[in-house]
Amino acid sequence: MITSAQNTQVKNIIKLNQKAKARREQKLFVAEGRKMFLEAPENLIDKIYVAESMLDDEEVMEKVRRFSWESVENGVFRQMCDTQTPQGILTVLRQPSYQMQDLLKEKNPLIMVLEDLQDPGNAGTIIRTGEGAGVSGVFLTKTCVDITNPKVIRATMGSVYRIPFLYVEDVVSLKQQLQDRGIRFFAAHLQGKNSYDREDYKGGTAFLIGNEGKGLTDQAAEAADCLIRIPMCGQVESLNAAMAAGILMYEAARQRRN
Amino acid sequence: MITSAQNTQVKNIIKLNQKAKARREQKLFVAEGRKMFLEAPENLIDKIYVAESMLDDEEVMEKVRRFSWESVENGVFRQMCDTQTPQGILTVLRQPSYQMQDLLKEKNPLIMVLEDLQDPGNAGTIIRTGEGAGVSGVFLTKTCVDITNPKVIRATMGSVYRIPFLYVEDVVSLKQQLQDRGIRFFAAHLQGKNSYDREDYKGGTAFLIGNEGKGLTDQAAEAADCLIRIPMCGQVESLNAAMAAGILMYEAARQRRN
Repeated sequence: MITSAQNTQVKNIIKLNQKAKARREQKLFVAEGRKMFLEAPENLIDKIYVAESMLDDEEVMEKVRRFSWESVENGVFRQMCDTQTPQGILTVLRQPSYQMQDLLKEKNPLIMVLEDLQDPGNAGTIIRTGEGAGVSGVFLTKTCVDITNPKVIRATMGSVYRIPFLYVEDVVSLKQQLQDRGIRFFAAHLQGKNSYDREDYKGGTAFLIGNEGKGLTDQAAEAADCLIRIPMCGQVESLNAAMAAGILMYEAARQRRN
Repeated sequence: MITSAQNTQVKNIIKLNQKAKARREQKLFVAEGRKMFLEAPENLIDKIYVAESMLDDEEVMEKVRRFSWESVENGVFRQMCDTQTPQGILTVLRQPSYQMQDLLKEKNPLIMVLEDLQDPGNAGTIIRTGEGAGVSGVFLTKTCVDITNPKVIRATMGSVYRIPFLYVEDVVSLKQQLQDRGIRFFAAHLQGKNSYDREDYKGGTAFLIGNEGKGLTDQAAEAADCLIRIPMCGQVESLNAAMAAGILMYEAARQRRN
């Protein structure tokens, strides 16, 4: 059992939680909690840390024992965690590595393109809601939040294990790469002419979502095939980025069901 | 100019930010930032605190001078704020006090009923998205997060000033009070038969949203006239509470536009 916060493994987990650079160099990330462990793809699990308090949870321990694992004294375990009230299990995973075609497997893919999105909660919520809406993959510009940030991972509620994602240079170069795939790029924009529910998303569809404060860059909006508008009553100037994304994805899902 | 963190006004603002009881007793709440000040209803403004750094912002100061205000040394101002990077202005407002009829003014009201919702970001996002979708009012059970919590206020992006809200005992008693108003209660529920987009929300409509972890209580689900389902692909078990609320409200808005 690990009983000291000075243990090198403990220090490394804290570093992995805090530093995108450490995650990138080690090609690892950390997922906290019971659900995130139980849903973790077995081929990606590198190591598991279990708090003393979790050792008698048989459902968890049965899976834990099939991997490399260590028990950790409760107080030390809390220091390893990014959350305030940790659930007693922490999984270290290898970062999945997706190719373009992993995100475009379907005939009429529904993809999200996130430009310079900064809030970890928004990124995670878009991935979670995206899995629910049937999204095929998520592209992120390299200026976006790191998807292996523990706050993103947590907000995905496990969807990060199942939705392929790929970092790209920018929206314009992605549009060029996808130009022969028949995917229409839609950007929610204040200049949008039609309300979002007046367009057809049954064919290959990409939704562009911009930065929380600044919205989409002009270059990204110009790269879009169609600017759409989410109607807003009252004095609302914009919706939360994840909310706008969710409303668009679920409208596409609605059209594809009907 | 206030230059000491020991100043009684400074101490009281910190208390108002941290304690629901203090807000309730004084019938006040605090809104941080430029937008929240500029959109604040004049009849509710009690006092304004301006950081030194904001004193040369003429757009802000022109409005500030019409009310009771104080300037505050930058370091002390930061201590008065709930945010990490305060914007230099803090507005103390009297709590608005709504009656049932304020939430039901329209012929076919669209209302939200939040049961035991705990996350301030979710509550605020529902109010913000609700204003955008044309919601007439928000009911909260008394076990919900305090709507005057600074994190709720911030997440509403000003919509809290414009959307009437009312705390109620519980969902069942609210349903009884509204029974002659012709408002149908819809609950998103795993047992829901029809997909949410198969029901009609053009008449008086109430959407029930439950607690983040536990969902709706059985009593609330039983009080609903209709259980609906938000279809979810993949392994997603539920959506974030604010996201589910947003998808339902925007579906109602879509139907009411068309």
